[in-house]
Amino acid sequence: MPPAPVAPEGYQTESILKANKQAAEHGIDLSKLPKLMDLSAASITENVHAINSNCPDERTKFIFKHLIQHIHDFVRETSLTTEEWMTAIHFLTQTGKTCSDIRQEFILLSDTLGVSALVDSLNNAKPPGATEGSVLGPFFTEDAYDFQNGESIASEGKGEYMYVHGRVLDTKGKPVPHAVIDTWETDGFGMYDTQYSEREKPECRGRLKSDGDGNYAFRAVVPVSYPIPSDGPVGKMVTKLGRHVFRPAHLHMQIEAPGYEKLTTALYPRGDPYISSDAVFGVKSSLIVDLKPVNDPELATKRGFGDPNKIHMELEHDFILATPEEGKVARKKTHEEMMKGVKTGMDHLKLD
Amino acid sequence: MPPAPVAPEGYQTESILKANKQAAEHGIDLSKLPKLMDLSAASITENVHAINSNCPDERTKFIFKHLIQHIHDFVRETSLTTEEWMTAIHFLTQTGKTCSDIRQEFILLSDTLGVSALVDSLNNAKPPGATEGSVLGPFFTEDAYDFQNGESIASEGKGEYMYVHGRVLDTKGKPVPHAVIDTWETDGFGMYDTQYSEREKPECRGRLKSDGDGNYAFRAVVPVSYPIPSDGPVGKMVTKLGRHVFRPAHLHMQIEAPGYEKLTTALYPRGDPYISSDAVFGVKSSLIVDLKPVNDPELATKRGFGDPNKIHMELEHDFILATPEEGKVARKKTHEEMMKGVKTGMDHLKLD
Repeated sequence: MPPAPVAPEGYQTESILKANKQAAEHGIDLSKLPKLMDLSAASITENVHAINSNCPDERTKFIFKHLIQHIHDFVRETSLTTEEWMTAIHFLTQTGKTCSDIRQEFILLSDTLGVSALVDSLNNAKPPGATEGSVLGPFFTEDAYDFQNGESIASEGKGEYMYVHGRVLDTKGKPVPHAVIDTWETDGFGMYDTQYSEREKPECRGRLKSDGDGNYAFRAVVPVSYPIPSDGPVGKMVTKLGRHVFRPAHLHMQIEAPGYEKLTTALYPRGDPYISSDAVFGVKSSLIVDLKPVNDPELATKRGFGDPNKIHMELEHDFILATPEEGKVARKKTHEEMMKGVKTGMDHLKLD
Repeated sequence: MPPAPVAPEGYQTESILKANKQAAEHGIDLSKLPKLMDLSAASITENVHAINSNCPDERTKFIFKHLIQHIHDFVRETSLTTEEWMTAIHFLTQTGKTCSDIRQEFILLSDTLGVSALVDSLNNAKPPGATEGSVLGPFFTEDAYDFQNGESIASEGKGEYMYVHGRVLDTKGKPVPHAVIDTWETDGFGMYDTQYSEREKPECRGRLKSDGDGNYAFRAVVPVSYPIPSDGPVGKMVTKLGRHVFRPAHLHMQIEAPGYEKLTTALYPRGDPYISSDAVFGVKSSLIVDLKPVNDPELATKRGFGDPNKIHMELEHDFILATPEEGKVARKKTHEEMMKGVKTGMDHLKLD
């Protein structure tokens, strides 16, 4: 190969003159750009870090440094093939295309990979003794009716009778009066009201307040397990992973009171076949509850059930709220524990 | 708090009976599902690994194990907030929505994070002495015309004259005759033909063959640097990172010959202001070439330029092809070097 011809000093093509003019017009100060080192599979990560090091926002820079390190390490560890990379591109594209005003397939992806549960656990860590949180899910609505203690959130015929009651307390056992409790659940067919094509009014959801002594009580129906949306790319992924697409039955609760952190949680009736394999990792053992069958027409009448001769299930549960100070301590502790986990997190992958 | 009521042994709600029936109908063998441990921010990763351990395809299982470990570690290391998680969800959704038949925003995302260059380097590693690869990019088309050595791929008026010539060789310096060479580039306005709303015929692209001695030659125009699509979410991300959106000028080349691995590469004329800060990390130093200005009307006439009195740029470059056996050795070596990098890849993040 003959020696490469060299442009005479000072000669610039129109192409280069144009590019320099363009850079100036875009306000790009080329002198301030970090110069990339020679690119190879070994050096590419450092190069991406270098070019991102000009990011004016420190938090964004920090997040992208860790993001890029992990994505690149993932590609190297798996020796990802071009075909697998293309499969990932198509999968992400289809996931985006499946999102609409009433469907969020990327949240579902995050849910099924345990990312939502992890983000929730980190951001909403609770002190010992306080009720643990669980994922909000996509079925909360703002339009639920206000109702009084003792009333029902479900219309007659919507499912098996359930009576839910208990207290709202602080971590010292002191009642929290007038706490606002939002609750929502599936009907007896495993469907949220928003999943019906015709929804005349809010159903199997409502908002009440604890009384002056922190007590709450309402009628509902026994919630039923249900599949996550499984006709999209995420459902196909879950199936390819050899998993099922079901969530165990649960009753959502969101509780707010002045001076306390908002609690977003759910209660999971024991015995559901999916309780130890929740498709979205929402179950925590402290949130598993026992439903007690009550066969007592007099009590059923007193509690206001339409047909007092039917057995109803009783769910009694107290919710313990944390103060912002208690929450802060708990989150700091959780974060420290997490960082220990990070340092050993790769060990079991046996990369050697 | 009073003791939780316990359901009498053997009593099951309709909800649970229904769920068990449903599981049977879906062919879910609940006895074979790994039981999740108690979920917490510390245990969630092991739980997701456990539930994915039933995956029937070993490669898929391996990929997801590494994917989930990295995503979870990323969330923990950054203590990702719920708001940041939601920003990521919206970003990915918008990236999906921006994809169309003629635009692939997820590939652009992969490009701008250096992932495409990394996947390319791993999958197309070359032995010492062989020409290195560069990213294919989105502008290759199948419909380019065949043309003869010495002809032009660009119409008159499309840009500054450029004469490209050299040889196709193997790693031992032996000429590779009749190699098929696909080449494509921007015109003098920094536009590929496919970017014009009206495209009558292929322009600034073509397919020729090396001659019996491995020589090739063609007329073209000096390529011009250009911005990646910057009106979508990826362009906004790049700008937020304090980066510019430009690629340095380059001439794409794809070369195929029986007995050799296909080479997908590009040549980058030295002097481009973006050459050390390519928005998609395509530049390798071995692919940077010098353009020699030729002010010689006689030679320009011989080479077939329309106006022989204009200066033309000469680009001389030999392409060295690898055999499949040489490629295999190179990829194995690259992978081994990569794995060394993985083990120390986190060091500079200074997690302690």
